[in-house]
Amino acid sequence: MEAHENVDQALAAPAPDGVWISRFTAAELHARADAVDPELPLAGVTFAVKDNIDVAGLPTTAGCPDFAYLPERNAPVVQRLIDAGAIVVGKTNLDQFATGLTGARSPYGAPESVFGGGLISGGSSSGSAVAVANGSVAFSLGTDTAGSGRVPAALNGIVGIKPTRGLLSTLGVVPACRSLDCVSVFAREMSLAESVMRVARGRVPDDPWARDAPQAVEAQQTRQGWEARQTREVRQTPEGWEARQAGESQPGQKARVGVAEGLDFFGDSGQEKAYARFAGDTTVDIGPLLEAGDLLYRGPWVAERLADLGDFLAAHPESVLPVTRRVLETGSGFSAADAFRGRHRLRELRAAADRMWERIDVLVLPTIGTTFTHAEIAADPIGRNLILGRYTQFANLLDMAAVTIPNGFTEDGRPASLTLFGPAFSDDSLMTLARSLYPEPESAAGHTLRGRVLGGAGPGGTGTGPGATGPGATRPTRTGADGTEADRTGAGGTGAGGTGADGIEPDAAGMTVAVVG
Amino acid sequence: MEAHENVDQALAAPAPDGVWISRFTAAELHARADAVDPELPLAGVTFAVKDNIDVAGLPTTAGCPDFAYLPERNAPVVQRLIDAGAIVVGKTNLDQFATGLTGARSPYGAPESVFGGGLISGGSSSGSAVAVANGSVAFSLGTDTAGSGRVPAALNGIVGIKPTRGLLSTLGVVPACRSLDCVSVFAREMSLAESVMRVARGRVPDDPWARDAPQAVEAQQTRQGWEARQTREVRQTPEGWEARQAGESQPGQKARVGVAEGLDFFGDSGQEKAYARFAGDTTVDIGPLLEAGDLLYRGPWVAERLADLGDFLAAHPESVLPVTRRVLETGSGFSAADAFRGRHRLRELRAAADRMWERIDVLVLPTIGTTFTHAEIAADPIGRNLILGRYTQFANLLDMAAVTIPNGFTEDGRPASLTLFGPAFSDDSLMTLARSLYPEPESAAGHTLRGRVLGGAGPGGTGTGPGATGPGATRPTRTGADGTEADRTGAGGTGAGGTGADGIEPDAAGMTVAVVG
Repeated sequence: MEAHENVDQALAAPAPDGVWISRFTAAELHARADAVDPELPLAGVTFAVKDNIDVAGLPTTAGCPDFAYLPERNAPVVQRLIDAGAIVVGKTNLDQFATGLTGARSPYGAPESVFGGGLISGGSSSGSAVAVANGSVAFSLGTDTAGSGRVPAALNGIVGIKPTRGLLSTLGVVPACRSLDCVSVFAREMSLAESVMRVARGRVPDDPWARDAPQAVEAQQTRQGWEARQTREVRQTPEGWEARQAGESQPGQKARVGVAEGLDFFGDSGQEKAYARFAGDTTVDIGPLLEAGDLLYRGPWVAERLADLGDFLAAHPESVLPVTRRVLETGSGFSAADAFRGRHRLRELRAAADRMWERIDVLVLPTIGTTFTHAEIAADPIGRNLILGRYTQFANLLDMAAVTIPNGFTEDGRPASLTLFGPAFSDDSLMTLARSLYPEPESAAGHTLRGRVLGGAGPGGTGTGPGATGPGATRPTRTGADGTEADRTGAGGTGAGGTGADGIEPDAAGMTVAVVG
Repeated sequence: MEAHENVDQALAAPAPDGVWISRFTAAELHARADAVDPELPLAGVTFAVKDNIDVAGLPTTAGCPDFAYLPERNAPVVQRLIDAGAIVVGKTNLDQFATGLTGARSPYGAPESVFGGGLISGGSSSGSAVAVANGSVAFSLGTDTAGSGRVPAALNGIVGIKPTRGLLSTLGVVPACRSLDCVSVFAREMSLAESVMRVARGRVPDDPWARDAPQAVEAQQTRQGWEARQTREVRQTPEGWEARQAGESQPGQKARVGVAEGLDFFGDSGQEKAYARFAGDTTVDIGPLLEAGDLLYRGPWVAERLADLGDFLAAHPESVLPVTRRVLETGSGFSAADAFRGRHRLRELRAAADRMWERIDVLVLPTIGTTFTHAEIAADPIGRNLILGRYTQFANLLDMAAVTIPNGFTEDGRPASLTLFGPAFSDDSLMTLARSLYPEPESAAGHTLRGRVLGGAGPGGTGTGPGATGPGATRPTRTGADGTEADRTGAGGTGAGGTGADGIEPDAAGMTVAVVG
């Protein structure tokens, strides 16, 4: 019974481990595995849920024990996944109230990246990212307001989907910034992320933040010449390598890919080189995007967090972590007129961003400019948090969809990552493009989705054939459930040169993959 | 030369008269009339511009002399009309900074309704409405944030169009609430209002608030069965009177018209009876709409006015009228968190409003629940202003389009009015429906638009045949340029009974029409 094996695997991690806040018991999970209808699209696939999203039967803490409540119902987005056969294992750690991008702001522990070495997990969806990256579960739900569904994907070498606002219901989610919050998806493979998105999305009748994709989007994309979804053909670099997926390839327009020049990598030449491996068609000015992003933590949008949390913070100041309190309290310095001024400026910046989509179909940026260890974050918890959000925090404000994928490693073995951005409701096109850039392991060709996910892949390993590109395949180092750390001089040692023109396709040489069962 | 006659007519009113703040000279206007290309769609048609919209060569005061500046360029929406052959005569009075619905809040005088008797003109687009109603110009531009383009239309017996936000550019307009402001259109006839809308609308490249109508809107309206635009066939009452326009009528779905029960008319049985003459298909609960409207003046949206005006108000407190200052200063009592809380609540209310559009295609409400004289407003300038906005102020917040049309008169001779509401981008459908409810004078059939407008109609009069329905046709009393007041016991004396089932079509009996030239 694959469902039972998946459940056992999910239970293998010790608790508490900084990743999980609560889990169902083995008996409960095996009972669910027994009941799974094998014909369902996600039958027996295990997943974790960030602990600011309601799962009936487990407390919702939002990373704050005194805030905890026991929800009677699953959040609608969780229910949709359960109805599709997936098994929710438990609730995962997060930066308190989803405020932070480090993974270091939780009373339930500070998870380390699966790559070890003291590297932060990233946040705020810290536990959800690590639980997927270490193979405990096949996928997980996070949330993303400023980058919480992308930064930890980057730091753990997995895929992170930040959907268009309103596409996945946020009912049953503890609000951070209610007007910006998104439920996000982590997975090791794009194809599973896409399957999860297909199931998870959909209008929930009483969700005031739900949005329908306008019928015009498809027409507009066609008009702009982006038929990647239809043709599955993507040109990546001016030098001309083309990732063609087997099957439906046919002549057609190609996505116009924008990149940025002169980005700040905060002195991290490793991440700079990793991004330079990726070449787009057009260089764009992301100045308006960066200015918009600054409205979130440095501008009046901080006060949006107080709109929901203000009363709790006032009544229970000691229940909130000092760093979180410090961030939230900056929101009380803004007036309503400030909030409207910010909104007016955002509208101008969004107009600039919208003009960008007339020139390009997708923007590709490094997910993070640099990485930090927990020691580095402890030395400057707020300043370095801002650095982590530099290339993520504008997306929700500017109504973009985003997809984060691994981009190999730096020469010193740290994970690199790219994020693809598109306008609202470009999710499907972005995921198709992302799948071309980060393709499935060849050994998986012909397998069904369920077969691949359940077919005996151990933690982090999803395939063994040549060209295998699961994040486990190229990890230079990983920390297993037993806490041992592998040699840091693995595939990472091949450096940028080793991956050559197809820099985004991880080099399979030197990989260490643990295949279990 | 019709253009010259129109110019002379516009110049006939004395200045200052509380309606105009500035006008071009006779020489300037006749020079423009000389230069008009007679083939243009609005050739020689005169119009007035509310004095918070830039017209090159005349100061923009926003109703505050110390705020005044001389713009170098026409606001794009003004330029589009000029390019179509229309002649801008001058700038009209308004409630200072477009804050107010009475017409009583201006240092340039407090215009009276064309129906006289001390009745307020309504505001904030006071001068623009009166200049159209008294026949000085054929149409005018106003603005509408809370009802400023509808309340004065109601009080002066004319048509007012409050377009979907972003359809007419607000560049070159002094902001009130930047995220809600609309440029509005006044005219005596729907057909001219429609022509003006066709010319005035259109995306201005650098306008961050511009919006394109989604291609899906038309499809959705068809799906919902509203093919009024195609069929020009509208059913109005359950009793079954049908207004069919000549020509294109053909079988098709009909608009589902919603009305409200239990409305507050503030003790005004005359307005209550006037609204009762109109019967819709379905009764809807407008509670969520009214709650949304209260966010505007009683909630954090007051602070949006401070986002732009706050600096001027702080530097020049004595330059602002006490009543205006009092209203604006309430905005400083709201925090940024309050603003976000208001926005979150609005989102919930908007979801409720959106669900309403699944049941009906158009909502018809009284434009105002009651009327006031200047003496009554002076006694309670803020409380009675709120009463005037009760059925208008939610529209912009809830992203509705609105069209105001005359609805005959109360038994005691005061003007009654209806406003048709639809979802964003329903403007064309609303105008078509409005034209069915408030049809053209029959004598105008076969005339060209230009012919009708320029064809010798004097102030307020646009036709003389049976069934003539221009506002002049049924006015029980009007104040001419010379200040004389006609008998108040005219058509108004026929009362609700006189208009019978077709209550919306003004009874032509007893009309006094001044036909000049």
